[in-house]
Amino acid sequence: MSGVFEPFTVVDVRFPTSRDLDGSDAMNPDPDYSAAYVEVPTSTGESGVGFVFTIGRGNEVAVSAIRAVEDLVVGLDVDATLADLGGLWKRLVHDSQLRWLGPEKGVVHMAVGAVVNAVWDLRAKREGKPLWRLLAELSPEETVALVDFRHLTDVLDEDRALELLRAAEPGKAARIAELEEHGYPAYTTSAGWLGYSDEKVRRLVREALDDGFTHLKLKVGADADDDARRVGMVRELVGPDVRLSIDANQVWEVPEAVSTVARLAPYDLTWVEEPTSPDDILGLRAVAEGVAPVLVATGEHVANRIVFKQLLATGAIGVCQIDACRVAGVNENIAILLLAAQHGVPVCPHAGGVGLCEVVQHLSFFDYAAVSGSQEGRWIEFVDHLHEHFVEPARIERGRYTAPRLPGSGAQLLDASVERYRYPDGPAWTDTVAEPTHTELTPAG
Amino acid sequence: MSGVFEPFTVVDVRFPTSRDLDGSDAMNPDPDYSAAYVEVPTSTGESGVGFVFTIGRGNEVAVSAIRAVEDLVVGLDVDATLADLGGLWKRLVHDSQLRWLGPEKGVVHMAVGAVVNAVWDLRAKREGKPLWRLLAELSPEETVALVDFRHLTDVLDEDRALELLRAAEPGKAARIAELEEHGYPAYTTSAGWLGYSDEKVRRLVREALDDGFTHLKLKVGADADDDARRVGMVRELVGPDVRLSIDANQVWEVPEAVSTVARLAPYDLTWVEEPTSPDDILGLRAVAEGVAPVLVATGEHVANRIVFKQLLATGAIGVCQIDACRVAGVNENIAILLLAAQHGVPVCPHAGGVGLCEVVQHLSFFDYAAVSGSQEGRWIEFVDHLHEHFVEPARIERGRYTAPRLPGSGAQLLDASVERYRYPDGPAWTDTVAEPTHTELTPAG
Repeated sequence: MSGVFEPFTVVDVRFPTSRDLDGSDAMNPDPDYSAAYVEVPTSTGESGVGFVFTIGRGNEVAVSAIRAVEDLVVGLDVDATLADLGGLWKRLVHDSQLRWLGPEKGVVHMAVGAVVNAVWDLRAKREGKPLWRLLAELSPEETVALVDFRHLTDVLDEDRALELLRAAEPGKAARIAELEEHGYPAYTTSAGWLGYSDEKVRRLVREALDDGFTHLKLKVGADADDDARRVGMVRELVGPDVRLSIDANQVWEVPEAVSTVARLAPYDLTWVEEPTSPDDILGLRAVAEGVAPVLVATGEHVANRIVFKQLLATGAIGVCQIDACRVAGVNENIAILLLAAQHGVPVCPHAGGVGLCEVVQHLSFFDYAAVSGSQEGRWIEFVDHLHEHFVEPARIERGRYTAPRLPGSGAQLLDASVERYRYPDGPAWTDTVAEPTHTELTPAG
Repeated sequence: MSGVFEPFTVVDVRFPTSRDLDGSDAMNPDPDYSAAYVEVPTSTGESGVGFVFTIGRGNEVAVSAIRAVEDLVVGLDVDATLADLGGLWKRLVHDSQLRWLGPEKGVVHMAVGAVVNAVWDLRAKREGKPLWRLLAELSPEETVALVDFRHLTDVLDEDRALELLRAAEPGKAARIAELEEHGYPAYTTSAGWLGYSDEKVRRLVREALDDGFTHLKLKVGADADDDARRVGMVRELVGPDVRLSIDANQVWEVPEAVSTVARLAPYDLTWVEEPTSPDDILGLRAVAEGVAPVLVATGEHVANRIVFKQLLATGAIGVCQIDACRVAGVNENIAILLLAAQHGVPVCPHAGGVGLCEVVQHLSFFDYAAVSGSQEGRWIEFVDHLHEHFVEPARIERGRYTAPRLPGSGAQLLDASVERYRYPDGPAWTDTVAEPTHTELTPAG
């Protein structure tokens, strides 16, 4: 069964999350979680789906960028493409004309990621496996063939990557079985959004503890006094044995980051996330030196593997936060997982938004099975928003992600949700009465 | 005369330059120089123009991004906006939802740049001055108010920027007069495109020398043997007193860059441009150490001032190549000029494409008048393509840019050119017979 790729369906899907201040932080006061959602069909009736995640305005620019990438895919032979997804990645990322718009960053790079992820979704569905198992069961040679080592070789080349993957082969089958049974650790951000009242935060923290979470993250950065008060309140509530991290969403200058985190030292923080600009490798390194033993975590806005290479090589980040939809898809995230493994830095994915939990969990499951071989100091972010719109919602049990079981990448939205939240003409946007985007009955929401 | 900003006109303009291999290099074999061209009108009948420069595919994504930025401008009071262009910059760059698509990089950032530049064009036209004179005649206080120091203050803050600008005040009037009379040094890339035959290169090099150029740049990076042969050929042709630089357009790995440039040592190079990824601050620094005294030049693909901050602070670049249309417009380029001045690194703008010479010359003229105060080791790139489409084409005399004289930023295309090259429906694209995009009668073309 071969066939060729046919024209895409691309939909601008937006959820009016700003109505509830879900997802509010110091940099993003009023996000409307959105997806430029692409279905990549074949002439034989199969398809894969992927998306660019955005927070509202500009989602239509991501749609336009996916359309620009479409021209490079339609008409390609499906079998040959699926057999060489490293080749597809290079074809899309290195297109000389589209490349000018990055290079390898911003909307076009994210659009390539959506398309690459959609083709992976198709491949996983065709092979009847969840993406993480498909990836975990590749040989080291098959895995390195997916990675473009261009501009990485001064730190990581194919030979070194093969060594890392081969070293993780023993015990892989056992780790896959363990993941199937026990899942992977999660931490939750659901309790600590900046727009929430103290009362709501306290209630949500208690619910998170009841749900078995042992690591919580709070948004900070709007006001240093208020940050200290809120972090202190939560530390008192959770006691000494629960981990607390904070997320400043880039709002600090370098010296300010160091001094503000120093002030929070009594509250025993695990990491400070995005203390300053994600482009500021040297600034983040200075923060890392200034706030140790608190770790610096960054990655959700890191444009590509070349920037991650430097963040890891300099010790600027002690926690590597990959995102499923920022870089150019599965292949580039594999490169980043390998770079992190090379430097012994734990990978703790960014998630939340819409669909990010569903997709990125596959990468951490793969990381444990086939790359890092460890869950020590590793958690996947969990935010309890909008899961009900997915065919296989991310599922948490006792503070751990359970293993996804359906074939595919996790990106598949319910058809009804796509229709309802289609922007600007779906009923969620045209109905005059605002509606909540999720119920408050879910465990941490 | 006040008024408000009205809805934009945005046109996808593309020149079929790939038909002649103009602009071909190791990374970009077949560019179609293009502009997502925006006119920002006011309710009082004024307007300013700006553009995102691209090399073809994806120009429509830039159009879409300009449309996304439009919503943040339409309806603003014109007088109040022009009186606080630092405020406008922050409004556009820090829009929380659009910001997600960068942050501060890629298509959305470039679109903000086009709009910011268009508003500057409007202001310069209203004040009846070419942009460079308008900028040069601002006070140090007015200039620093244009700059957003966010994420720069560990290296450059407002006080230090004021010191730099005040130090350049003495002699400013004399330098402005000097620029009016003698212009600013240029170097030419027109002779050395990778797709040209040896015979064509030799002819163009001779023409460039006849035209008074004393600094030429050649494209390299496709094949090391061929690079050495071509650079040797040109060095022999020009003799020892003409400067030669090379441009690898990012194709090398770090060690490869060092070894290839070492091989070219006999040919006395001034700089090597884009030896590797523009995101690789540490890699560029390693190249700089490895190829000294040849300087590393980079910037046309550097996403924003935060990356420039690091490139300059680490000594990764010895030549700072601003681009008029990569970062978020005039304001961000002023920040970069200040960072370069702070580190004593000469600014040699990237130009070429379509309209980049016309716009970026204003920034170097301003730099000499009000920031660096020096032309030592400084040249603006000149490429002899497509100037005939502009109301005030960049003009070279004896190897120097002459001072632009018309009010505005230089970005204004001829109406006839916009109509002819409108994509995909302009006659240049619908006519079945291919046409040349420029004549060969121009001095260096």
